[in-house]
Amino acid sequence: MNESITRNADARRIQSFIAAAFRACGMPEGNAARMADLMSEADIGGQDGHGIFRLPQYIRRIRAGGMEVDPKIEVISERAATALLDGGNGPGHLVMSRAAEIAMEKAETTGVAWVGARYSNHAGPAFLYSRMPLAKDMIGLYVAVGSANHMPPWGGTDLLLSTNPISVAVPSNARPPVVLDMATTVAAYGKVKTVADKGGTMPEGWMIDKLGRPMTDPTKSAEGLLLPIGGPKGYGLSLIFGILAGTLNGAAFGRDVIDFNADPQTTTNTGQFIVALNISAFADVAEFKAQVDEIWEQMKSSDRLPDVETIRLPGERLAETTAERRANGVPIAPALRERLDKLADELGIDRL
Amino acid sequence: MNESITRNADARRIQSFIAAAFRACGMPEGNAARMADLMSEADIGGQDGHGIFRLPQYIRRIRAGGMEVDPKIEVISERAATALLDGGNGPGHLVMSRAAEIAMEKAETTGVAWVGARYSNHAGPAFLYSRMPLAKDMIGLYVAVGSANHMPPWGGTDLLLSTNPISVAVPSNARPPVVLDMATTVAAYGKVKTVADKGGTMPEGWMIDKLGRPMTDPTKSAEGLLLPIGGPKGYGLSLIFGILAGTLNGAAFGRDVIDFNADPQTTTNTGQFIVALNISAFADVAEFKAQVDEIWEQMKSSDRLPDVETIRLPGERLAETTAERRANGVPIAPALRERLDKLADELGIDRL
Repeated sequence: MNESITRNADARRIQSFIAAAFRACGMPEGNAARMADLMSEADIGGQDGHGIFRLPQYIRRIRAGGMEVDPKIEVISERAATALLDGGNGPGHLVMSRAAEIAMEKAETTGVAWVGARYSNHAGPAFLYSRMPLAKDMIGLYVAVGSANHMPPWGGTDLLLSTNPISVAVPSNARPPVVLDMATTVAAYGKVKTVADKGGTMPEGWMIDKLGRPMTDPTKSAEGLLLPIGGPKGYGLSLIFGILAGTLNGAAFGRDVIDFNADPQTTTNTGQFIVALNISAFADVAEFKAQVDEIWEQMKSSDRLPDVETIRLPGERLAETTAERRANGVPIAPALRERLDKLADELGIDRL
Repeated sequence: MNESITRNADARRIQSFIAAAFRACGMPEGNAARMADLMSEADIGGQDGHGIFRLPQYIRRIRAGGMEVDPKIEVISERAATALLDGGNGPGHLVMSRAAEIAMEKAETTGVAWVGARYSNHAGPAFLYSRMPLAKDMIGLYVAVGSANHMPPWGGTDLLLSTNPISVAVPSNARPPVVLDMATTVAAYGKVKTVADKGGTMPEGWMIDKLGRPMTDPTKSAEGLLLPIGGPKGYGLSLIFGILAGTLNGAAFGRDVIDFNADPQTTTNTGQFIVALNISAFADVAEFKAQVDEIWEQMKSSDRLPDVETIRLPGERLAETTAERRANGVPIAPALRERLDKLADELGIDRL
């Protein structure tokens, strides 16, 4: 049956579907459950390009021998406040969950910890990992080398850089945590893909072609160049984050980055890092959280430009979308549902 | 004598002038020398809004009782990999030099260290501090709460945020270090002030007025709003960096920020932090530096957009300007020279 309308899927159903799909590919139960937790959290949080949307691609990679379902994730070098993980070519979700655990454990005593990873893979949206330290009253900071290069250096046309996202999460008290989750490009490539899926056009300013002309057709994005925020500044951020998350960890960066959309087989050697910063090493935790609430109030109560209805904080929409989708389910576009149905049939599991 | 042309001043002369000015205000010899070193490095590096340009303002603050010349800089809380400094209301240069030393010392064993400061002050350009760990084969990361609010939250008009700059420095081998030094706004406020000094106009996109209209006259900047890079993204970066460098350290952020341009007397309680990341905790240092050189080559050799002559890396212009100005001196605009002459006469020291 071909459908033409977007229907919602229950969040728990998305979770069980993802787990079943991975189990059907030979992934151990615990790993599959972890993947399902995190990927469904991406959907529930509104990151439509980074949750179940990626499932067919991950499965394709696993079946092509390009990603391990039971990776050996090892600490290959360690100091009191740092660790470098070899992810064993496992899904980034498993690698960076482990990295976050180690970072939190270390920061408990040292005050801060920085854990990098090599031989990881795409890990979904950055906020999944920056939020993890919140449970321990820590601030989380996560940076990844993007899993495909769609951005040139400023002034160039060779695709040497990715969106290299950054996310920082800061706990609050009564208000939602402040969660910044941003690409260093005006638009993340996943966003371009979801616009293409919905049959829309991109606003000018997201991409240009190799002659520098604005590009608005998302189906042509493979020939386009993503634009960095603030011109050379976003390029600089992307370059620096790439060095920190990639090169420093012995992971791919620049020309070494494998386009995981185009090539399901080659080991990507994706690099990421997470920092856990223990609030109690600097401040009284309760007092700090109350101050973050106070910052919310300050920003929200600012006078506004004409025609602006409300001022938002990073993490506000995430909290709203999460509440709304937990109650009402996650919208699944027809094109995606079709791909997921096909995948279910291939794997011999129940359709979503 | 009124001058109307920009003449260069020798870099060492700038340094000795700054030191003499601070000594004349009662600053101990060692502190004055440290200030002169760092402030002249700012000029030599091309940060015209952050070196000797700021001297009259710093002196005014000292004489108004708003900044200490011999601050008691104390560690008020400490973990293996973290420290929180009370800067004793000293110049940010002295406070953050000390912070960088502590961070490097800790990271020597722990692999990474994060040192925050409260009761600091304006510290000049961020690259001065992010570069310090390079000497120990470490990566440096520095963030400051700006010393005056010139940016509203996205969609707002209340000046609750600053440019909150970030700088990251990464060592290389044959090439200059990669040094990102950027404001989270399209233009730093110091840049607006130097344009005003030179009698120029600002390009559209730097500032808007409270009705959202573009502002290009830099002499009206006090009524304008700086625009963040990438719209809500730059706002998010500024907010998060403000929380990390300000709130977490018990320093001013949001409505508590004192405009150090307008008010020379009130303690600013400026917050900053520095992170030192020990490369040897993750990689072979020589190999890593060679890889950073290789990244230079990759970026430089990219194909280019039409009309683009060369691709630059963050830190490239800093290295070029530093070499050029060490040889030929630092251009001093007539308006600035006049202010410095006046200051010299007041303090009874030789003119520049």
